[in-house]
Amino acid sequence: MAESKPKLVLAYSGGLDTSVILKWLCEKGFEVIAFCANVGQHEEDFSAVKAKAVAVGATKCIVTDLRKEFVTDYVFDCIKSNAIYEGRYLLGTSIARPCIAKEMIRIATEEGASYIAHGATGKGNDQVRFEMCAQALSPTIQCVAPWRDAEFIESFKGRSDLLAYCEKHGIPVDAKPKANYSVDENLFHTSYESGQLEDAACGPDESMFKMTVSPQRAPETSETVVIEFNKGIPVKITNKTDGTVKTDPLEIFLYCNMIAGKHGIGRIDIVENRFVGIKSRGVYETPGGTLLRAAHMDLEGICMDREVKRITEGLSNEFARLCYYGFWFAPEMELIRHSLDFSQRDVIGHVEIELYKGTCIIKGRSSPKALYNADLASMDIEGGGDAFDYNPADAQGFIRINAVRLKTYAALRAKDN
Amino acid sequence: MAESKPKLVLAYSGGLDTSVILKWLCEKGFEVIAFCANVGQHEEDFSAVKAKAVAVGATKCIVTDLRKEFVTDYVFDCIKSNAIYEGRYLLGTSIARPCIAKEMIRIATEEGASYIAHGATGKGNDQVRFEMCAQALSPTIQCVAPWRDAEFIESFKGRSDLLAYCEKHGIPVDAKPKANYSVDENLFHTSYESGQLEDAACGPDESMFKMTVSPQRAPETSETVVIEFNKGIPVKITNKTDGTVKTDPLEIFLYCNMIAGKHGIGRIDIVENRFVGIKSRGVYETPGGTLLRAAHMDLEGICMDREVKRITEGLSNEFARLCYYGFWFAPEMELIRHSLDFSQRDVIGHVEIELYKGTCIIKGRSSPKALYNADLASMDIEGGGDAFDYNPADAQGFIRINAVRLKTYAALRAKDN
Amino acid sequence: MAESKPKLVLAYSGGLDTSVILKWLCEKGFEVIAFCANVGQHEEDFSAVKAKAVAVGATKCIVTDLRKEFVTDYVFDCIKSNAIYEGRYLLGTSIARPCIAKEMIRIATEEGASYIAHGATGKGNDQVRFEMCAQALSPTIQCVAPWRDAEFIESFKGRSDLLAYCEKHGIPVDAKPKANYSVDENLFHTSYESGQLEDAACGPDESMFKMTVSPQRAPETSETVVIEFNKGIPVKITNKTDGTVKTDPLEIFLYCNMIAGKHGIGRIDIVENRFVGIKSRGVYETPGGTLLRAAHMDLEGICMDREVKRITEGLSNEFARLCYYGFWFAPEMELIRHSLDFSQRDVIGHVEIELYKGTCIIKGRSSPKALYNADLASMDIEGGGDAFDYNPADAQGFIRINAVRLKTYAALRAKDN
Amino acid sequence: MAESKPKLVLAYSGGLDTSVILKWLCEKGFEVIAFCANVGQHEEDFSAVKAKAVAVGATKCIVTDLRKEFVTDYVFDCIKSNAIYEGRYLLGTSIARPCIAKEMIRIATEEGASYIAHGATGKGNDQVRFEMCAQALSPTIQCVAPWRDAEFIESFKGRSDLLAYCEKHGIPVDAKPKANYSVDENLFHTSYESGQLEDAACGPDESMFKMTVSPQRAPETSETVVIEFNKGIPVKITNKTDGTVKTDPLEIFLYCNMIAGKHGIGRIDIVENRFVGIKSRGVYETPGGTLLRAAHMDLEGICMDREVKRITEGLSNEFARLCYYGFWFAPEMELIRHSLDFSQRDVIGHVEIELYKGTCIIKGRSSPKALYNADLASMDIEGGGDAFDYNPADAQGFIRINAVRLKTYAALRAKDN
Repeated sequence: MAESKPKLVLAYSGGLDTSVILKWLCEKGFEVIAFCANVGQHEEDFSAVKAKAVAVGATKCIVTDLRKEFVTDYVFDCIKSNAIYEGRYLLGTSIARPCIAKEMIRIATEEGASYIAHGATGKGNDQVRFEMCAQALSPTIQCVAPWRDAEFIESFKGRSDLLAYCEKHGIPVDAKPKANYSVDENLFHTSYESGQLEDAACGPDESMFKMTVSPQRAPETSETVVIEFNKGIPVKITNKTDGTVKTDPLEIFLYCNMIAGKHGIGRIDIVENRFVGIKSRGVYETPGGTLLRAAHMDLEGICMDREVKRITEGLSNEFARLCYYGFWFAPEMELIRHSLDFSQRDVIGHVEIELYKGTCIIKGRSSPKALYNADLASMDIEGGGDAFDYNPADAQGFIRINAVRLKTYAALRAKDN
Repeated sequence: MAESKPKLVLAYSGGLDTSVILKWLCEKGFEVIAFCANVGQHEEDFSAVKAKAVAVGATKCIVTDLRKEFVTDYVFDCIKSNAIYEGRYLLGTSIARPCIAKEMIRIATEEGASYIAHGATGKGNDQVRFEMCAQALSPTIQCVAPWRDAEFIESFKGRSDLLAYCEKHGIPVDAKPKANYSVDENLFHTSYESGQLEDAACGPDESMFKMTVSPQRAPETSETVVIEFNKGIPVKITNKTDGTVKTDPLEIFLYCNMIAGKHGIGRIDIVENRFVGIKSRGVYETPGGTLLRAAHMDLEGICMDREVKRITEGLSNEFARLCYYGFWFAPEMELIRHSLDFSQRDVIGHVEIELYKGTCIIKGRSSPKALYNADLASMDIEGGGDAFDYNPADAQGFIRINAVRLKTYAALRAKDN
Repeated sequence: MAESKPKLVLAYSGGLDTSVILKWLCEKGFEVIAFCANVGQHEEDFSAVKAKAVAVGATKCIVTDLRKEFVTDYVFDCIKSNAIYEGRYLLGTSIARPCIAKEMIRIATEEGASYIAHGATGKGNDQVRFEMCAQALSPTIQCVAPWRDAEFIESFKGRSDLLAYCEKHGIPVDAKPKANYSVDENLFHTSYESGQLEDAACGPDESMFKMTVSPQRAPETSETVVIEFNKGIPVKITNKTDGTVKTDPLEIFLYCNMIAGKHGIGRIDIVENRFVGIKSRGVYETPGGTLLRAAHMDLEGICMDREVKRITEGLSNEFARLCYYGFWFAPEMELIRHSLDFSQRDVIGHVEIELYKGTCIIKGRSSPKALYNADLASMDIEGGGDAFDYNPADAQGFIRINAVRLKTYAALRAKDN
Repeated sequence: MAESKPKLVLAYSGGLDTSVILKWLCEKGFEVIAFCANVGQHEEDFSAVKAKAVAVGATKCIVTDLRKEFVTDYVFDCIKSNAIYEGRYLLGTSIARPCIAKEMIRIATEEGASYIAHGATGKGNDQVRFEMCAQALSPTIQCVAPWRDAEFIESFKGRSDLLAYCEKHGIPVDAKPKANYSVDENLFHTSYESGQLEDAACGPDESMFKMTVSPQRAPETSETVVIEFNKGIPVKITNKTDGTVKTDPLEIFLYCNMIAGKHGIGRIDIVENRFVGIKSRGVYETPGGTLLRAAHMDLEGICMDREVKRITEGLSNEFARLCYYGFWFAPEMELIRHSLDFSQRDVIGHVEIELYKGTCIIKGRSSPKALYNADLASMDIEGGGDAFDYNPADAQGFIRINAVRLKTYAALRAKDN
């Protein structure tokens, strides 16, 4: 009986790989519910994806618009924490995975499915992130990863095998030839890797990029925006040049993407370290994220205590690593996020930034919660304003006491010589 | 008898403050030996400084060219460690202090002086750095800091008092009016702070900058350089556009400054946290340092193991804090530098970077010690080349075992609900 | 007029030093309000202290019983965080300072006093802790530290000067000769340092100790207690040997002190690093704290996730350092304590411990929130119980993927040889 | 042909499990070379093990005495680094694995074997440690782990299956019934887990322990030893009570074991976190290691700078985690060990410790490289001896400058209220 088929939710993109996987899973006896997350992919036609899923064999295809949730519950957490992996990568792919996995588990639960499947490869980070998030949310869920399945791998050794399978099963294939690199898209970033990019000595083609122009093609005239934060979260952006204002979270973020992308901001080209122990070359464009991170870092400069900053730098590195590795729903991530939230209580104010040909130029910042005190900072003013009196003479004692250890050590070293 | 005067070495710049201090120290009964460190200040006329020092009252004025030593023993250590304070400041002022202090102590020892003096203020970092370095190198040295001396401060409440003192004592004063901000220069960077910059909401004047043009005024045409490193140290720069090659450390660094400055690279504007507990607004330009840091970070991506990277990120933060705070000659800094040196054993190779209007665009990298392996990274190749066999099926176990903790925790949480 | 005298609150112990200081401050023109904190000092006669303060010259003497607050708001935070300075010191003196300083500032505010004073020396940690806490709570408070005052130091070069001053001013002096070491007492611990203890090569006299017997003099028969925690806080202790039960926080702590002290538990003898840069030899006894820390650490073993443990170990080290240095009321300490609190949500359960001649022997533990799962742990059971299935075969993939980096590195090293 | 059989080196103990495995591997077509590492197991009869291996089917059995190498190259590194996992476990099992794996790979290389095998279970840490170390040393080695093999597991579901297999194949079985817990032994420690110990609420049986007596059964009279270190390594132990002296590394360590074990020192009972994500209950006895760690920690107190200590505490935690997880031969471990070695340059001197009924009582310490300075530490002496002058007045400035941040923050908070 058809009823006895095990139900499976497949993360479906409409592309070649996941279409083949969809069919293959049907052949393996699963009832496949296709799921397509709208996390802001560029120019995606979701109704076409839906139709194709059903045409290929899915019993249904659920498309969920996760864009708002993705921005408020995931992307803004990255901004708040200044998260950056290995000093350079803004986690654009990593951060989408828990958002998608959560919805996938929600659907699986609703549909009574015991299985989920995805088209991520067996060498990458995404398989780890998807499945770790899924298992954390639903410990008994079973994950099917055809690209790790010996039989599947044996059947599909290259693109031609996939195309032949499509032809055999009447699966429509996109007419335009596949790019010689792979792409992952969401509203936070677009990533490019594999194929021609595997040669780490060669730069990417200009034609590749979707969210940004190159600095060279960016306008000759800069624009200036003012970004306002409340408790570390962007709450308003104002374009000082043309007067545009956005206050809705999703609109703020999309506007940041547009304006930063227009000015060529947010591209990187790196070799990074995957969680599975492999070094990987990736090219990323994260226009809005790059702009917002610069603004947020700058605001922290004026609002956040030095030692709180020191400690949150460590927590931020943990956040980045945990997010990159797929531990979004892990207990340690709960702790890190809880702690970072607390650190943002006073990160309130705005930052003005000029955008020009790939560069974010900070023009000034201001905060009602500033710990920065111009009178105290001033080299020309002896004290520090009304709250208290800074006495330069105190610095001598400060220095001399801090030097006690150093002098003791120097005396020991001198004895050695 | 004149011989009985205590000898003192004064860090002398030839400017208004240190000229007044020189005279004041003479009046206080010191025999003052002026010392002027050449750490690559922009357009400094050292023979004029020398003549002025003696004219004001110094028994002699020693000018030491520390540029080579500064680059090889200090600046390159910053590059090697990727040091950055609070995520943004490249330590340009901080790193010059130990270099200058070391020479100052060498001169004091040679001259038999028991005192050193400087013109740093009582609210800043430099007093700390100078004196901490000096005391670490010579535990019995006495430090005189007129800007912390109650009598001195009382006598010189503003610029007009300084000017009046100069007039009274026939000390020549620079004709051009003082800028409304203070400047610190060396070949690594120029810093601007105080005065009009104390308003953190207002950007700096374009006229201020000495080492860089603004991105807007940078050439319309980019240039591409190839920077080669050995054990984390830059050993060669090649301008691919015009064929220039530099291999001498000082020449490499000066060329980096020139080429990056020409293309508007390396300006920042931040509020940072001084060691004395005060927040301070600073504007910095570090053209060569910005370029070299980007190149070095990138090369580490391809050469350095992931976990070594994770650990050295922590050491790099320590390095930055210790350098910024003035603990260059502290025992813990010895440990950090020793550890970072070890981590650079295999950081060998070159990076290609395009410079354009404020941005460093990485174009590719290559290393004879690469841990990056294109075959292993490839999503299309099952194994990992000759050295060993990557089996995608292994990833399943990897994920499932990593999820054990998460599932246990989820099960506990589920019980709560 | 008497009214015009500036008011000052003095931390007063009734001992020789603070009695001399009290009188000296009166002579200096202060109206002195003596304050004596009851933080559980051994055998202190507070009414005698009170009478003496007034006799010496205080306008009044306020004794506050801070014991309950000290236990719940300070000591239990140490237990909860497993705080230990430099791996050995349980912070017994450090943790009392913010508690006392807070009350002192409360009194100063209530009494309209602008000054506080203490009898701590100029080489120690306590001056720092007192004054840092006081300034954090009341930025405009003025701190008077006679032992840093040149005139005071000049007047009182040794004990005989203090005694002479007492005789001159009719200040009663304790008949029994002063021990050749200094003592600090509160209910958390007693510390011994200085004098004969400055010879780091010689052990302390057995006669010195107040809260513990030596292991040698402890009973031949052990006793076993069960300690129950809720969210990381001790909520009940049961003596299984004699049936005693305590549930009030202060009573629990005092009982822990009594029972652990009786069995010779909690002595250490160390050389530690003071915040002022000096190494110091200290002997401490912390019976109840040692017992509770052992119990709490053990309970975390069964309740706390591995990675949460790893992160909180770092936070615990920060907590210890901040507490030891006197930064209890600093913004970074707020963050640390907030984070640690969150980590304790599930630290619920009890631990059984046998006490015998200096040793805490853990006998077992149990928790309703245990992440420990005997079935999952069992080497003999394939799966892991109902929640999910542990498959030993997964471990192979886990190992092989974890080894990918190592194999890549080994291949590189092999090329070198 | 027999020659065509693949060669395999099996870590063989002579016990039930590895004897069955040996036979099973022979049946699977391997030529099995048994290898038995002498790492100081208690009362092991290596010639009996050797004979049994050959009787069961090994082509040969190699026994290597690794005790000296184990002490000098592994155990002493633990002591030097103060390594302790999760604050309690001294890594006794963990540290033996790389030592054994290294010899195993040496033998495999010498014998031309492409396979190694072990009897570790699929739920534990040891499988990970063995195989990670093996793969790091020989990237192409193949690891066989029967306890992760589905067929093997299916065949041997319990002890009776193993015994039946032995009977069937004439494998001699130890007459005495197996203890209801598993034991791992080497000269550093003995561990007990599984079986009856899986109930975390119940304490271990006294009869279990092999290296220590219980504190209760320890002698009524203490003994005192003096342990001397050079660069963090124990170089001499003297029993002050009976005059015994040892200077050979292995002899020093065995003597520490004997004397500490005699006095009931070094037992722990914990729930720890395995690398495979499972919590596990373990009981350990590490007599000599406990004694040496206490001595080494104490010596660092007098010799090591405060900030060096702070940094090495972090490195020590990394060391412990890496060792526990099996990353002994990983690149990051090279970095950590290199850094820790550097930190030990001045850890030279001796510590006196009294041993009594489970407790190590520090009696004093001394070092030619002491940074401890009794004059500087003294509360009674104003200065700090000849090297320099400590001025108590400096402490005021030190405190006031450290409080600047706190006062600024307090002023901000006050505005909020």
